Amino acid sequence: MSRVIAVFGGTGAEGFGLASRWALAGETVIIGSREVKRAQAAAERIKRSRADAKVSGMENVAACGVADLLVLTIPFESHAALLKQLKPTLRPGTIVVDATVPLAASVGGRASRTLGVWQGSAAQQAAELIPGVSVVAAFQNVGAEVLNAESPVDCDVIVCSDDVEAGKSVRDLAAKIPGVRAIDGGKLENARILEQITALLIGLNIRHKGHSGIRITGLPPGAYTGVVK
Amino acid sequence: MSRVIAVFGGTGAEGFGLASRWALAGETVIIGSREVKRAQAAAERIKRSRADAKVSGMENVAACGVADLLVLTIPFESHAALLKQLKPTLRPGTIVVDATVPLAASVGGRASRTLGVWQGSAAQQAAELIPGVSVVAAFQNVGAEVLNAESPVDCDVIVCSDDVEAGKSVRDLAAKIPGVRAIDGGKLENARILEQITALLIGLNIRHKGHSGIRITGLPPGAYTGVVK
Repeated sequence: MSRVIAVFGGTGAEGFGLASRWALAGETVIIGSREVKRAQAAAERIKRSRADAKVSGMENVAACGVADLLVLTIPFESHAALLKQLKPTLRPGTIVVDATVPLAASVGGRASRTLGVWQGSAAQQAAELIPGVSVVAAFQNVGAEVLNAESPVDCDVIVCSDDVEAGKSVRDLAAKIPGVRAIDGGKLENARILEQITALLIGLNIRHKGHSGIRITGLPPGAYTGVVK
Repeated sequence: MSRVIAVFGGTGAEGFGLASRWALAGETVIIGSREVKRAQAAAERIKRSRADAKVSGMENVAACGVADLLVLTIPFESHAALLKQLKPTLRPGTIVVDATVPLAASVGGRASRTLGVWQGSAAQQAAELIPGVSVVAAFQNVGAEVLNAESPVDCDVIVCSDDVEAGKSVRDLAAKIPGVRAIDGGKLENARILEQITALLIGLNIRHKGHSGIRITGLPPGAYTGVVK
């Protein structure tokens, strides 16, 4: 049986973009939302692009109950609350991919600045709140606009986790998005840098009116999962 | 009369690489060091590549006295001490380019982690220590190995400063290095993210045995100074 990916915040632009890309690549995807109707409507939008896409919409806790791999694409102000809500439903061995960025916009500040998180990063906060699952930090630096466009994504995805196998699974999943190359970025503690980079890219987008991303140059071919298209 | 660029830490690999690239591009460069003999020896090494290169070696304070644009490529543990030493010699209007990264290696920790700097970043510490000059943060993410190779540099240089004109001058200077594109990264406070990225890249270099750098994708052509070669 194939794995089930649940994208929380999947009705938002970033989550919808990831869910679309994976559903179009043949993955089984659930859009998670507080409101099941909004989740189902988002799933229907994806099916308009590919009628046989294996995508559905569910309420968050219900989605958590049937998914093998959870992806968090939620505003930082909802991060801890959602994890506490999902915690009783999480099973050991579940992979939780955290793309959350603690932007200062969460408390009325700028999206080009971050908040300090006591644990070091949003992803490390997740690891503390939901012990016993494998937390993987990834996708913070791939913007919603490029995910929702039809062209290949001109970005690398750096993947950080303390669980080596979970990290590898997520790199393979990232490389299913056309154009994306995934790179092992080491331990989860490095998530703090990935989260800061998002603030920098948002600042560049505002300043230069673009949809910026990053590519990592100068590593040997074996360091990259996926190819530039 | 053309401007004079002084590279402090110019006998180290990073500073030597920058000094070489600019001297080979026709700029007037001084290698600054605590020891004038080491500085002169480094200048001679550059002249072996280009006999008419306008490069010389001087003791740090002497170099500061004759330079229009200072570039700091020094270990963080020497950062504050050097700036205090140079302060009496600095003239208003001088541009100080800070490439310093507060790596934990400065206090016996890892080069893949950074120290917290009270002002937010090494570059902001510089701005506090030497008021009245224009501090520009840049070049943290271009590794010594790629600068000292003969091939074009496959990296973008993000330039942050509160002085718009100084930032533009440094972007033009960055683009004199073959392959480099320079990008306006906004205010000096964003230097903290550039400094963190260096720690990430060092971690990638160790993990994947490479010489990593970054490119920023997705911005309109006008956002880049220089071209990819």
